Formats: sequence, structure tokens, C-alpha cells
Amino acid sequence: MTLVTEPVLVFPEYQVNQEEMIDVLENLFPYHPKWGTIEKMIRNTQVENRNLLLPIKDVIVHSGFEYRNNIYKEKGLKMAIEATQKALDANRLTPKDIDLIIVVSCTGFLMPSLTSYLISALDFRPSTKQLPVLQLGCAAGTWAINRAHEYLTAYPEQNVLLVSVEFSSLLFQPTDGKIASLISDCLFGDAVSACIIKGTVAQGDQGYLIDDITSFVKKDTDHYIKYDVKSTGFHFGLDKEVMNSIKDVAPIMKDFVAKDAEEKVNELDFFIFHTGGRKIMDELVKNLDLIEENVQHSRNSLKNNGNIASAVVLDVLKAEFDSKNRQNGEKGMMAAFGPGFTAEVNKGTWIKN
Amino acid sequence: MTLVTEPVLVFPEYQVNQEEMIDVLENLFPYHPKWGTIEKMIRNTQVENRNLLLPIKDVIVHSGFEYRNNIYKEKGLKMAIEATQKALDANRLTPKDIDLIIVVSCTGFLMPSLTSYLISALDFRPSTKQLPVLQLGCAAGTWAINRAHEYLTAYPEQNVLLVSVEFSSLLFQPTDGKIASLISDCLFGDAVSACIIKGTVAQGDQGYLIDDITSFVKKDTDHYIKYDVKSTGFHFGLDKEVMNSIKDVAPIMKDFVAKDAEEKVNELDFFIFHTGGRKIMDELVKNLDLIEENVQHSRNSLKNNGNIASAVVLDVLKAEFDSKNRQNGEKGMMAAFGPGFTAEVNKGTWIKN
Repeated sequence: MTLVTEPVLVFPEYQVNQEEMIDVLENLFPYHPKWGTIEKMIRNTQVENRNLLLPIKDVIVHSGFEYRNNIYKEKGLKMAIEATQKALDANRLTPKDIDLIIVVSCTGFLMPSLTSYLISALDFRPSTKQLPVLQLGCAAGTWAINRAHEYLTAYPEQNVLLVSVEFSSLLFQPTDGKIASLISDCLFGDAVSACIIKGTVAQGDQGYLIDDITSFVKKDTDHYIKYDVKSTGFHFGLDKEVMNSIKDVAPIMKDFVAKDAEEKVNELDFFIFHTGGRKIMDELVKNLDLIEENVQHSRNSLKNNGNIASAVVLDVLKAEFDSKNRQNGEKGMMAAFGPGFTAEVNKGTWIKN
Repeated sequence: MTLVTEPVLVFPEYQVNQEEMIDVLENLFPYHPKWGTIEKMIRNTQVENRNLLLPIKDVIVHSGFEYRNNIYKEKGLKMAIEATQKALDANRLTPKDIDLIIVVSCTGFLMPSLTSYLISALDFRPSTKQLPVLQLGCAAGTWAINRAHEYLTAYPEQNVLLVSVEFSSLLFQPTDGKIASLISDCLFGDAVSACIIKGTVAQGDQGYLIDDITSFVKKDTDHYIKYDVKSTGFHFGLDKEVMNSIKDVAPIMKDFVAKDAEEKVNELDFFIFHTGGRKIMDELVKNLDLIEENVQHSRNSLKNNGNIASAVVLDVLKAEFDSKNRQNGEKGMMAAFGPGFTAEVNKGTWIKN
């Protein structure tokens, strides 16, 4: 069994709201020929607030790939330790109870990886297994839960620690005036999250029990969501064609839910969706024939925190815990989308012992 | 069950031998105050030949992180496709028979990852699972086999494709005159490898059947083997303290072999060791009390190809197939070492049906 327990979210100390961000970009690109369109599109993102590692005035100055990556390491490790300790404490576990550490992140590069630094920083066993993954972008949160499910299927007596470290603000490229880039500059937020995934359900446990998992790659779509890797770091690129992917993945999500249980997607009780952006959410609602109310946690995560990449699904899952609306035995699904175009999907049952 | 079948190695077209490399570095650093020591240390590496993606005259010119990473993508995908097709053909499998693709690599950064490009380039199922890992360095080959073992323990009817893509020459930093860096410049080689790992043994199969796996992190050793990430790309750093790690991991390897079977390490029939360098091999031989003859494949891989990072263990495993010396039922072990300091170890049985 694979029980995803309540995630811990740790946000950095600075914020920027939409109006401030519009001012910042207008000052950076005072003569942008498409500014009217851009401002309208930024308002359309419905991202009202985002949390940032640094004050916005420092975010928009490129301090060099090396400097930024050093900040990533220092702050990433500090916040990962904080999130991990809180997640362990909430589950009454110690580092010694963890068998596999998965760290997903797409906003910095470290070798050794954060898995290794975490094992040293806290009192994890030297035999703790490491699974550090950088290249799955926004799909990585659900991807990690799916991999944890495979692992715990083999080793049901074990526990997995999942940590997501996402500092998209460290990828801000101040000379990039492309329309898509300026919209992205107002879309992504910073966050760190940790979550314990248990192989065995105990008395008193609450969480999302994985029933089944699936993965999907839409071929020849590497331009949809990608990085250009340059001396200035990772340059995020988004093609508007990405909107076409949801209509392709929706039938797969429907079939996946119908398999075994013959359930319909829109009859599920809850949905934990990666909110790539407003339009992705709109496409999901349309193509899966969902009720708006059922995706409010996903919409709220986008509104309040921006797209926090692999941490989004953990933020939305946490909102399900916070809402206290979920009843034992209710059925739900989780889905996230990322580069490739890759979708990672699972379905499960709410457990409230 | 986890059967590691015969790996395919694909080497790039250019070569450089030790004498040529000494000339190249002497020309780059004509007034290096420690040149005498450096030349002696290079000769001591016992690396006689290495394969390179580009002619050595181009390797030593830094063409920019972006340009190098583009070469990594173009050549990496091309060679990964070639190696994958050969590995599939040798096993009479098609891409449709593969359920999980693991790509390990520490010499470039792509998003989407090579797993995604491979799924598009060959006729893999859209539901093929991806496991792309960049941060485990030279430990990643054995690491991937250990993760495949966990996966196939859960899904024994499935098959895993492992691909290793290592182009260390793209990390050559021509202005770095540190002694350790100049030795490293003569140590690492380029290679791509692919290997099918099967969950079920069929009639006629031959290979290395995994009996058990283990992992080890020596805490607070992140300076032993590391990258500095800069605008010029990844800068490899090696601390001579790394030599101290083998005496720490050797007792763990001994206990691991003794567990269950009460066997002694030096009574095993074969050893597939990552040859980080000559001294690491010397330390292994000394601390595990091995016979030199039993580590000849590991020594030869280093001599003929240099340290090809995560691909080393696949190269050494291939040598066991090529030698035709292995008999059904013989016992062996595999170990690799990388940043962290991380060791990944497994033990197994030679199968010759």
C-alpha cells in the first residue's frame, strides 16, 4: 500500500503580487511594442501572489548562474531540512525510519545532490537510498509519488520521504523580452515541500492511498515545455501548442479511471491537479467535464502561490487535508504535466482511520 | 528476478592516448610550476587510451556551455538510439517490450530529458515510464541496476532499459590548471551504453542475476567528488581524501556479501568494479583482500577507455560476457562509487541457461 500523508509546505519570506509585477516588468521593458497585450495576458493568468526567495528587486538582476546556483544550494538545503523535520514530526517518525529519499527539483543543479546533503544534515541511515531527479519539471511531484508507489509495492514495510525544491525565481532572465517569457515571469513561484509516503497504513492514519498509477508521453512535443541551457543558466520556454496536449491526455485519464472500477472521471470526489496555468485548468475542466467547485483547490494554489512546479500537487493535496471535507473511502485522482510532454497520473482513495 | 543482460557499448570516433595528452597539457600550461609532478601523476593513472566525442584539439577549446550542451544533446541522443537498438535486437525485444527507461548521465543537462527524446525517437509506448538521473555521477550505473531491481521486484513481468550517456570531455576547462584537474583531464573518457534488465529469466538467457542490493552514503563528504556549477558549465572537483572512503565502505561490502550466504568477498568468482582511478582499485584490492587477476576487467576498462563514469560497470560487465569464462551459478558482485560519497553495491549469480 502507498499512503501519501499530509504534505508540509515551506514558503520563502518575500512576496510579489500581480500589480507589483506588472510595474516591475514595465520598468524593465519600458518601450516593449506589445506591452498592452502582455499586461492583459498577465492579468489573465489569475496569479495574484507569489512567494520569492529574494526581494523582487534582486530577483530581476541576474547575479550569474554560479551565484544563483549557490543560493539554490544554501536556501534549498535549509528549507528542505525544515520541511523534512516537520513532515517527520507530524508522522512521529525519525530520519532512521526513512528508506528512500526522493528529491525533485528543476531550478538548480547540484552534485552531490540534495538527497546526499540531507542524509548528512539529518540523522538518516548511511544505507538510505537516494533518488534525485531534475528533469521532470512540473510533472515531478506526481511522478515521484508514482515512483514511490512502485517502490513500496516491492517493499511495503518501508517509508519514502519526498522533497520538492522549486525556486523558479532563480531562473528569471532580465534580458528576455519574449511575450511568453514575460508571462512566465508572472506565473511561477518559489516553494519547498516535504511529504512522507508510507508503505503500510496504521491506526489513526489519514491520507491519499494510491490505487493505481499511469504515465503518458505525447511524442515529438519537446518544444512544448523546455529549457535552453546557457551560460546564464536555464531559460524556460513554453509553446502555446502545449494547450493541445490536454485534449490528448484527457481520454487517457478517463480510461485510466474507468479501468477496474468502471468509474467516470467526473464522478470522483476530489481532484489534485497540477495547475500549469489558468488555461491548462480550463482545458482539464472542459475535456473531463468537471464541476468548477471540484478544482477550486487547484485554482486557489495557482492564485495564491503561482505555479510552484513539482510542489503544486503537494500544495493542493495539503488543501484537501486543511479543508477537512474528505471522508473515508472517497475516490480521487492526481495529475501533473511537464516537459516531454509528459503526464503523470494516479488515482486513489481517501483514508481516515 | 532481475537479470542484467549483455550491455552494448558505443564509443565516439576520436581517440587520445596518454602521450598525446601529456603533450596537449604541456602546451596549454607551458610554464606550470608543478609540471614534473603532474606528468609523473598522469603516467601513474595507467589510462593509456580514451575515446572522445571531438578531436582533442577541439576538446581543449571551450566553445561555451550552451554550445557544448547542444553537442551533448545531439550526439547523446544519436548514440543512445544506436546503443538502445542494438541492445533490443540482441534480446529479440522491441521498444514496445520496455516498461521503464532509466537514463543516467552527469555530463549535460536537458529538459525534456533523454528518456523523453528516446520515447519519441523510437517506437516506445506512450505509457513508458521515465527515470532520468543526472546527479549520481560514477555511482549511477550500479545505482540504476539497483533501482531496476526494486522496480522489477514489484513488476517481475516487465523489462527495463538502462542507458548511460557520458561525455566527460565536454567538461574540459582549459583555464583550470589545478593539479587535480589536470590529472582528471587525463582520466575520464566518453561512452554511451545500453542494457536490457529483465524481470523474468527465459530459456537461453545469459547474464548477471541480482541476488541483493545495498546503498551507502559516507556523511559530510560532499567535497570528495563534486561539481562547481558555473557559467562555463560543470567543473569537476576531486579531493584526495576520497581515497579514505574505500576503507570505510569495504567492511560494508564484506558484511553485505556475508549476509544470508555467509560468503567472503574474496571467495566470489567475479567482480564488476567501477574503476574511479588506479588508486581506488588498489584500495579495493587491499581492503577486500582480492586477487589481482579477479579485477583485471576493471583495470582493463580503465586502461583502454579511461573512467567512463556511469558506463564503467556496464563496460566491465560486458567484458565478463566477452571472456566466456563465467559458468552458470558463479557468484559475483558489482560496486560503484560517486559523489556524496555514495556507494551502490549489489551481489548476484551468473546465469547461463
